[in-house]
Amino acid sequence: MPDFSSFSHFKVTSPSKYVLHVEVARPQKLNSFAPTTWRQLGDIFNLISSDSRVRAVILSGAGDRAFTSGLDLSPETLALLSGTVKGEEPLEEERLRFYKHRVIKDFQDSISAVEKCRKPVIGLAHGVSYGLAIDILCAADIRICTSTVRFSIKEVDIALAADIGTLQRFPKIVSSQSWFKELAYTAREFGSAEAERHGFVSFVATDKQDAFEKALQLATLIARKSPVAVQGSKHLINYSRDRPVQDGLDYTAAWNSFALGTDIIQAATAAVSKKPIVFGNL
Amino acid sequence: MPDFSSFSHFKVTSPSKYVLHVEVARPQKLNSFAPTTWRQLGDIFNLISSDSRVRAVILSGAGDRAFTSGLDLSPETLALLSGTVKGEEPLEEERLRFYKHRVIKDFQDSISAVEKCRKPVIGLAHGVSYGLAIDILCAADIRICTSTVRFSIKEVDIALAADIGTLQRFPKIVSSQSWFKELAYTAREFGSAEAERHGFVSFVATDKQDAFEKALQLATLIARKSPVAVQGSKHLINYSRDRPVQDGLDYTAAWNSFALGTDIIQAATAAVSKKPIVFGNL
Amino acid sequence: MPDFSSFSHFKVTSPSKYVLHVEVARPQKLNSFAPTTWRQLGDIFNLISSDSRVRAVILSGAGDRAFTSGLDLSPETLALLSGTVKGEEPLEEERLRFYKHRVIKDFQDSISAVEKCRKPVIGLAHGVSYGLAIDILCAADIRICTSTVRFSIKEVDIALAADIGTLQRFPKIVSSQSWFKELAYTAREFGSAEAERHGFVSFVATDKQDAFEKALQLATLIARKSPVAVQGSKHLINYSRDRPVQDGLDYTAAWNSFALGTDIIQAATAAVSKKPIVFGNL
Amino acid sequence: MPDFSSFSHFKVTSPSKYVLHVEVARPQKLNSFAPTTWRQLGDIFNLISSDSRVRAVILSGAGDRAFTSGLDLSPETLALLSGTVKGEEPLEEERLRFYKHRVIKDFQDSISAVEKCRKPVIGLAHGVSYGLAIDILCAADIRICTSTVRFSIKEVDIALAADIGTLQRFPKIVSSQSWFKELAYTAREFGSAEAERHGFVSFVATDKQDAFEKALQLATLIARKSPVAVQGSKHLINYSRDRPVQDGLDYTAAWNSFALGTDIIQAATAAVSKKPIVFGNL
Amino acid sequence: MPDFSSFSHFKVTSPSKYVLHVEVARPQKLNSFAPTTWRQLGDIFNLISSDSRVRAVILSGAGDRAFTSGLDLSPETLALLSGTVKGEEPLEEERLRFYKHRVIKDFQDSISAVEKCRKPVIGLAHGVSYGLAIDILCAADIRICTSTVRFSIKEVDIALAADIGTLQRFPKIVSSQSWFKELAYTAREFGSAEAERHGFVSFVATDKQDAFEKALQLATLIARKSPVAVQGSKHLINYSRDRPVQDGLDYTAAWNSFALGTDIIQAATAAVSKKPIVFGNL
Amino acid sequence: MPDFSSFSHFKVTSPSKYVLHVEVARPQKLNSFAPTTWRQLGDIFNLISSDSRVRAVILSGAGDRAFTSGLDLSPETLALLSGTVKGEEPLEEERLRFYKHRVIKDFQDSISAVEKCRKPVIGLAHGVSYGLAIDILCAADIRICTSTVRFSIKEVDIALAADIGTLQRFPKIVSSQSWFKELAYTAREFGSAEAERHGFVSFVATDKQDAFEKALQLATLIARKSPVAVQGSKHLINYSRDRPVQDGLDYTAAWNSFALGTDIIQAATAAVSKKPIVFGNL
Repeated sequence: MPDFSSFSHFKVTSPSKYVLHVEVARPQKLNSFAPTTWRQLGDIFNLISSDSRVRAVILSGAGDRAFTSGLDLSPETLALLSGTVKGEEPLEEERLRFYKHRVIKDFQDSISAVEKCRKPVIGLAHGVSYGLAIDILCAADIRICTSTVRFSIKEVDIALAADIGTLQRFPKIVSSQSWFKELAYTAREFGSAEAERHGFVSFVATDKQDAFEKALQLATLIARKSPVAVQGSKHLINYSRDRPVQDGLDYTAAWNSFALGTDIIQAATAAVSKKPIVFGNL
Repeated sequence: MPDFSSFSHFKVTSPSKYVLHVEVARPQKLNSFAPTTWRQLGDIFNLISSDSRVRAVILSGAGDRAFTSGLDLSPETLALLSGTVKGEEPLEEERLRFYKHRVIKDFQDSISAVEKCRKPVIGLAHGVSYGLAIDILCAADIRICTSTVRFSIKEVDIALAADIGTLQRFPKIVSSQSWFKELAYTAREFGSAEAERHGFVSFVATDKQDAFEKALQLATLIARKSPVAVQGSKHLINYSRDRPVQDGLDYTAAWNSFALGTDIIQAATAAVSKKPIVFGNL
Repeated sequence: MPDFSSFSHFKVTSPSKYVLHVEVARPQKLNSFAPTTWRQLGDIFNLISSDSRVRAVILSGAGDRAFTSGLDLSPETLALLSGTVKGEEPLEEERLRFYKHRVIKDFQDSISAVEKCRKPVIGLAHGVSYGLAIDILCAADIRICTSTVRFSIKEVDIALAADIGTLQRFPKIVSSQSWFKELAYTAREFGSAEAERHGFVSFVATDKQDAFEKALQLATLIARKSPVAVQGSKHLINYSRDRPVQDGLDYTAAWNSFALGTDIIQAATAAVSKKPIVFGNL
Repeated sequence: MPDFSSFSHFKVTSPSKYVLHVEVARPQKLNSFAPTTWRQLGDIFNLISSDSRVRAVILSGAGDRAFTSGLDLSPETLALLSGTVKGEEPLEEERLRFYKHRVIKDFQDSISAVEKCRKPVIGLAHGVSYGLAIDILCAADIRICTSTVRFSIKEVDIALAADIGTLQRFPKIVSSQSWFKELAYTAREFGSAEAERHGFVSFVATDKQDAFEKALQLATLIARKSPVAVQGSKHLINYSRDRPVQDGLDYTAAWNSFALGTDIIQAATAAVSKKPIVFGNL
Repeated sequence: MPDFSSFSHFKVTSPSKYVLHVEVARPQKLNSFAPTTWRQLGDIFNLISSDSRVRAVILSGAGDRAFTSGLDLSPETLALLSGTVKGEEPLEEERLRFYKHRVIKDFQDSISAVEKCRKPVIGLAHGVSYGLAIDILCAADIRICTSTVRFSIKEVDIALAADIGTLQRFPKIVSSQSWFKELAYTAREFGSAEAERHGFVSFVATDKQDAFEKALQLATLIARKSPVAVQGSKHLINYSRDRPVQDGLDYTAAWNSFALGTDIIQAATAAVSKKPIVFGNL
Repeated sequence: MPDFSSFSHFKVTSPSKYVLHVEVARPQKLNSFAPTTWRQLGDIFNLISSDSRVRAVILSGAGDRAFTSGLDLSPETLALLSGTVKGEEPLEEERLRFYKHRVIKDFQDSISAVEKCRKPVIGLAHGVSYGLAIDILCAADIRICTSTVRFSIKEVDIALAADIGTLQRFPKIVSSQSWFKELAYTAREFGSAEAERHGFVSFVATDKQDAFEKALQLATLIARKSPVAVQGSKHLINYSRDRPVQDGLDYTAAWNSFALGTDIIQAATAAVSKKPIVFGNL
């Protein structure tokens, strides 16, 4: 496993072979995200993406109270967002807005790193899961939650149209646009039952420990499959989501024309011989 | 509130501050749509879109029997659709078809005005909700219905592939394409239970009064949020629905780079002080 | 009805006027697909598409055990997939990969023929419905299954990212991406209850006979509607799925400007007179 | 011909049957565009678009000195652009930016009305043709100019990225992106020779009178063709420009399936009999 | 070489190794296209596309007078276009329009076969090159012409918006939209000088013999290159034309990940050794 | 200016205020690109993109003989491309192809950094400008060359379909697709006259010194304009190139709603006062 010890806002462990567990590790602050937090999130998932020893990732929040409460409204965050640097003259209006544009783009890129990570990511939500929590979970592949989770698309409550992923991804992963728009316009809380009924999560656990066990079981199962097949599937699903069916098929044909190879023969042989099989890293 | 008294087929009232209630007001004709009706629908929502005093809209049908039974097959409608003008020579074949093309486009634009309206629209369906009813409800943001509503994608029963929005929007707002295609090919009725299970509506009320109270409660809640956030969310959701996730993110970044401002500071201050906040119009 | 007797891997019958029943007819091999099977599938649906006497199609698998178990891993299939021709020199590496590219494209086209067929297709799944079964069902319009069906997106178990349609179509026809990705990455089985809850199927029958009766009832109902309306709806739904709402509307306006005609007048007259109506073929 | 006399900033005449000549008629101000001017431009072309008696349009600037020098920087314009209304409190920052957004969109729509007009538009440039002149000419179909015309993509000289059409349309209608970007970044003048060499204009006249005669000859020739064919061509060319070739072909097939009719038979008959033919209006 | 002798409207020869010469062979009818002609055109290019022995194609018209004068307005053509079959009742209006829709789509597909053919196609135009001639030449890769060629986008002269490719492809392959629209709206003739200046053709020959020699020299040169590189280039250029640059890059990366192989090593070795190299077929 | 001294394959200087000159500095190897070279190219342009002190960039090759001859076929390059690492086992076939896929993507990203750089880039070509030279020049904004430059889309000569940008960008920046495809399929050399005639370059200089002076004059002129306007123009042009005109307009309206500000007022004031103006960095 790579060394993640320099990431001060996260704890990264390997609960089983090929599987990483990434925890937002600021429980005393409800795992809220300062600029450092979101940058580290992006950096960690970029690292994982190109580490061939990892095959599945679990993403959760440390502590009992929250996956994340959203943005950390500390002075550091406010200074970043407002573009003020101590001792420097404030930017004039339009340059300040260009500055904000770049902050938003960087923030978006950090969240998108979860989606772009080649390995499947299982998001585990518990406790307070507000605002940014939804953005991040939408960028994960599989979502599970505890029965007592408290979700909210919180942004309109701070007078903001959500701008780092929820408005783009949430409607494409759930079953009811009427329900989604109600949540987006009112910022009301919703719980595990609604989240499951509308497909936002695919498993509701009794508590956080139970949720982690479910996540680990899924991650371990995925990690036993051919990484060529699993990572190819993630890439092709995301590619196809954004395009006409025929474009997805055309790209997939090109992709599999190079990606098909020895793993298939191994898998076929194993199927016949009933012997376990260990695929090479990718 | 603007003056809507000249719209003869509609009744427009303001049940609470910032909220408008638009009713199709032809109950004796099951609120069916003559050409005048659909043009007025478009004009009303275009007006609302640019009226900064409005923040949420409820759209329903007057009377007990129907949201709308669909097209009003009166002589006026038939004359419009067939391109015949009293006392004039009939159009030759291809010019007649050009004429029909323009009628369809105009009709589509009237329905799309509900979707393009900057303010959230809550559609309330009850009784007979056939054909055009589905087209209009699909263009609304949030859908609620009474328990006894009778929905039908009715168009194939008049030998028509639905052409003013249902085939485009319905499949993008519900959860099951298999269910949708069955409805579209058979025109069979479906009720509130199916509509809720598949996400077409997000609330089922016991009766029309109950439905209106739910709608008003939602509209009032939305009207209290920052209109910058709410209207931005509607615009960005609709923009992103039609595009790849990354295109949605890019546009959103540009949008929020001009839309972020004083409302956020007010909202943050209010959150700390626990004092109510009144946002400016937009 | 056209003559389908030359298609050795299929049985095609007409259980009622305008309705065809296409059965994969290799029950002794669990209806698995050899190259001959998939090419015949494509050819049959291309034929049906342009046969004006057909108005609805039921697609199922013969026998009690399986809709289809997926790819038939016979020597014929393996030879095709590996690009080896008896008595000829093997292809050098890159030409072999070009060869594979063409095989994948041809295979995709055979499955897409079900979607491109102008007539609605009702897929009936029972027993083992693995891999290819999902690809084919996704290309159908309406899906029904028996209560004991055993579905699996099986491809990762043979070290393959699914490449003939499932990754493109499945996420666009069901309600939960979290659930879909779990299925795609783990290849675990799922049954009728899950399939119904997430909208993959819209009817669960007690057994295969019951399922067929439901399918036939749907097909017969569809066959009584105007084929101009039904086939237009299928075409316009598929066109609009892949494009922005406005593009779907624009194309639909052009389409209906030529497709509207006498069937509407007949349908309107029949509605008034309450007399049955028989629409012409298309 | 419709009555255009209420448009104070334009002069509209009909130099020959079916042909309109639209002139920006503020020569004393170098035909610069105040808000009234651009709104009238949009209104005029919207009117022309649906007037079946018009088949071709010539667009030019009155007087000897300029097609248009660009924006009229009068107090009226500045007040509109700055969002200040006499006697009212100034808007707070973000609402001011929303206001500006709407001004830009409205301005864009006025220019786009030239492109969306169903009838072909021939743009005639002479003298000073700066900024807005380029935006408008890009929205025309055919461009001709005098030998002494002075073109400039002037916007960067007022610290502005051109936002009403030039950056979108100019690169799609000329031959060299290197040349285009040089013009866009430097705002340098270019003349008729360069404009012709790179395909921006397709005819260079000796003087304005000569240019008008060329334009009139073209317009008259176009007006003699079937309006079904000419207006269909404009619509299909613009539709196809923005889409993949196959999408353009699909839409065109649907379009011509309703647009083909009696004009073709007339045209064929006329071709045999060598007799002149007069097509009906559209 | 495959056997093309059954194609009665064409003559196909092989003027040098790997090169085919396809001639429209109805000189006595100015090589005009009857339905048989365009269907054979599509069939021939589909055959060539999958024949690995062919590496480049020259397409021209037999005789001295015309590449093709366009549609052959014979009774056979008129019967096909009008949907009348001897002895059968005429179709009612809307079914007739569906019929026409299918004829247009089939006709489009025949022309598109030239573009979809995997091998580069060099179009050689001489004499009368009207209407359909432009559609076909646009689907070719490289265009050369004689100095006396007479081009015309002729469709508006028969009251038709061109519907088999010119409106889609021509503007994407030439340098001036102003020039293109003038040609499309007026149907005026243009010659070799204009065609060359605006990039429609890339070589003007003194006469037909000279043109053929130039075409053959080009075809022979192309045929000596690696077919993996040449056919990949054609495919990737056409794919990228219709998509954003980044989509083109992504698809190209997947494509070359399977297409790169032994030819490169051979080419590199040959470059060093200065020895001629013969690439394998594809 | 930032410190570029660590980039061993490049020389970066500042010939005038706000202007950078980036030179490929391996003249003894004809400025051919090793992996180090292309990675440094990407890193340098990423750095420049976010350095607010730079407003325009000139990109050229050091020495008299070549802009660049293309790929440096050194052992380092071959090892990278073939995926062999000294002392490690070779990758099995499909993993090797995944590896190649990542190399191609990384290589593409390095070249695209020139296009994504926020500041305009002027490419200066002289001498041998083969293969990679074309890819890089296509990613620049403005292209100038010496009269004796020797261009070639060289890739097919090494049995390769160009995969790092030429096939995507070149056809979108020049005037004739017929000419482009001839170059792409034959790899023949072309000189400054052809390049200018078809719009690939917009200026031909007598020699390298002359070319540099022209480039510097252009860069200096651009650097004097408002960077808000210039960088906005580059961004909006590239955005709009890949999308329908209306999408470009919509995005531009959002962009300018935040980007408009004080520079315009300064520019307007300066225009009146005729005093020089110095815009702030961006």
